[in-house]
Amino acid sequence: MSERPDAGSALHLRHETWGDHEALLARTRSGSGGRVGVVETQRRPIADAGQPFHFEHGGQLDTVEVAYQTYGELDARGRNAILICHALTGSAHAAGVHNEGDVPGWWDPLIGPGKPIDTNRYFVLSTNVLGGCYGSTGPGSLNPKTNQPYGPDFPRFTIRDMVNAQKRLAESLGITSFASVVGGSMGGMQVLEWAAAYPEWVRSMVPIATTPRHSAWAIGLNDVARRAIVSDAAWKDGRYAPDAQPETGLGLARAIAMLSYRSFDSLESKFGRERVVQPRADWGDAPKPGVLGSMLSVAFEIQSYLAYQGVQLTKRFDANTYLYLTRAMDDFDLADGRGRLRDVLASMAMPALVIGIDSDVLYPESESKTLAESLPNSTYHVLRSPHGHDAFLIEFPQIAARLRRFLNDLES
Amino acid sequence: MSERPDAGSALHLRHETWGDHEALLARTRSGSGGRVGVVETQRRPIADAGQPFHFEHGGQLDTVEVAYQTYGELDARGRNAILICHALTGSAHAAGVHNEGDVPGWWDPLIGPGKPIDTNRYFVLSTNVLGGCYGSTGPGSLNPKTNQPYGPDFPRFTIRDMVNAQKRLAESLGITSFASVVGGSMGGMQVLEWAAAYPEWVRSMVPIATTPRHSAWAIGLNDVARRAIVSDAAWKDGRYAPDAQPETGLGLARAIAMLSYRSFDSLESKFGRERVVQPRADWGDAPKPGVLGSMLSVAFEIQSYLAYQGVQLTKRFDANTYLYLTRAMDDFDLADGRGRLRDVLASMAMPALVIGIDSDVLYPESESKTLAESLPNSTYHVLRSPHGHDAFLIEFPQIAARLRRFLNDLES
Repeated sequence: MSERPDAGSALHLRHETWGDHEALLARTRSGSGGRVGVVETQRRPIADAGQPFHFEHGGQLDTVEVAYQTYGELDARGRNAILICHALTGSAHAAGVHNEGDVPGWWDPLIGPGKPIDTNRYFVLSTNVLGGCYGSTGPGSLNPKTNQPYGPDFPRFTIRDMVNAQKRLAESLGITSFASVVGGSMGGMQVLEWAAAYPEWVRSMVPIATTPRHSAWAIGLNDVARRAIVSDAAWKDGRYAPDAQPETGLGLARAIAMLSYRSFDSLESKFGRERVVQPRADWGDAPKPGVLGSMLSVAFEIQSYLAYQGVQLTKRFDANTYLYLTRAMDDFDLADGRGRLRDVLASMAMPALVIGIDSDVLYPESESKTLAESLPNSTYHVLRSPHGHDAFLIEFPQIAARLRRFLNDLES
Repeated sequence: MSERPDAGSALHLRHETWGDHEALLARTRSGSGGRVGVVETQRRPIADAGQPFHFEHGGQLDTVEVAYQTYGELDARGRNAILICHALTGSAHAAGVHNEGDVPGWWDPLIGPGKPIDTNRYFVLSTNVLGGCYGSTGPGSLNPKTNQPYGPDFPRFTIRDMVNAQKRLAESLGITSFASVVGGSMGGMQVLEWAAAYPEWVRSMVPIATTPRHSAWAIGLNDVARRAIVSDAAWKDGRYAPDAQPETGLGLARAIAMLSYRSFDSLESKFGRERVVQPRADWGDAPKPGVLGSMLSVAFEIQSYLAYQGVQLTKRFDANTYLYLTRAMDDFDLADGRGRLRDVLASMAMPALVIGIDSDVLYPESESKTLAESLPNSTYHVLRSPHGHDAFLIEFPQIAARLRRFLNDLES
């Protein structure tokens, strides 16, 4: 996939490929149904001086844009829309290709004419979250008042803020409610927040491999990832130049996260103890001196894989944005300001398809099961996969079958 | 526990407490049986100019000492010894106290008069591994030729080298074989290596929460921990002064490791989303500027816990040693130079008690089960515990019952 750098983003995206190999392969199999074709990321202001965007934790901005893609046609009543919410390092580019021959968007096998999210029937909206670095206004964007990136001065934002920005965009597009709100991981948090905050807008929901409140375990993993970034001297308290990211720290943060997106079994079957035949100096630091230095070189394929994943992320993602987004995830607690979690969940009466993953290390299946049991009108489905958390970006046939049935049942 | 800094170690140990809270509490309950009492760590040369120590990957040293403790009396034939092998950041101080009132050694509830490893019957030997930083010669020791710490010039060493050093020490103490060789995690690797390399010395073995070859998953976790250390500018390619460790990097490495030593459930029940009431600036970095800076402060108890664990390790452990030891673990493959793993394991005919942990994230129970199934004369026991990998340092009553029965059956 190629995310084109846009004028407002301070980040140069220097590489065409992103994400994990399996996910990439899975996306190239388009699934049953037709193709969305060539798409373009659009951007739209959702605030101005007369209607600034207010952040949950304080602060406001007059200039906020949201990047988005749409597939299909909106009906006259504005009621046939489905909202797709992306995960931590995702973008609005869920389906189609930017140019012929590109690898398609991250959920392409599920979205298109005749596909489970059928663009002959639905108007599909996919946005880059508020605060993201794929076209929406965020820490990497230029502050119009200083002509410098916001960096660490960008207002703190939350999952609720992301949802409020999506709502402004949806209203401006003429959408009046969503047939479904769908997303995995951080996308699933947006799904749940939508359903709790604006139930009249959410006629059904599909939260996948997610949680209504971030666990100690998940907070801990984000904490060490953030520390990897801020420990990098190149981070410069967040005031690095756009072309001088803290690459070592961001790459390490990504490597830590990748382990939690995978599983013991998936890494063992893919890499085991395979050794690197040809070391790639560009995927690691310069060799260190001494006996120990030679021992620190990349020896095993798993090390090479983690290094590669890190390098790839530094080419496409902004370090400050990573800090803000992971903190928004850690802060996420659906019950905040709403009473007890079980009461909040019990009040969410729209049909819900909850999907868990049996090998998920980050959001264990038990969290998804408990979520499904706590929702009054839910169906639970488990993805059986060796791929861990990332299975929601890989196991398309399983997701397709369930999603198709769920959406069809809503119509009948 | 207090590990006294010794003259040869370049590392100052500035803090009395180490390890995890549960493990510490569990150790203070001494279990059934009498106490070992006050113990002292001793040191003994195992090489000299006439008989240098040769390392598996090349290199040799004339001056090598091993730190150790013993409990009980060796019998006339030198056959009543049990060897205790420690894990990554452990020491020879397995039982007893250094001073009255101290927290006892890391396996004290299992070792003593009348305890499962009964010092009325057995002569218990516990060593600090070759290359460790608790008294044995390692990267933190002074190189007698330069009067500087070896640092990154210390020879590369392996689990096999650790075992060979232990064997020299055991021979010098008059031991002729071990009634059992016992250890968890990296200690379990030593157990397996002992049994494969010197089966005539190992009359029985107890490998706990370990693996005969390090998995891609475990290598990956060690890889990111090492990268955290070498990314710290204070590491200085391994040539830091003894009182100027790369504390940020080593602390982060420890935090990453701690997550893998625990489990989703244990962290959730201990911390959940509890917030820090009184931030401890000394457990984290100085506050950062900007909106983002305030968001980077320690907000959740899990963050505070991970920061604390990191700070504690930097006070008692040497960063280069951490790099060497984790690489020795990653390199560990019992089959190296011995043929196929299943044949190697099938040839290890001594009675074995294999213990796995149902919540172990780092060495999943499946690894222990497979190990037990591959050994021809094994008993398998699973520790049922929420505590993850660290359960072998916490669940003493469960271990005690099984260990007592196993050792008694050997005698009868």
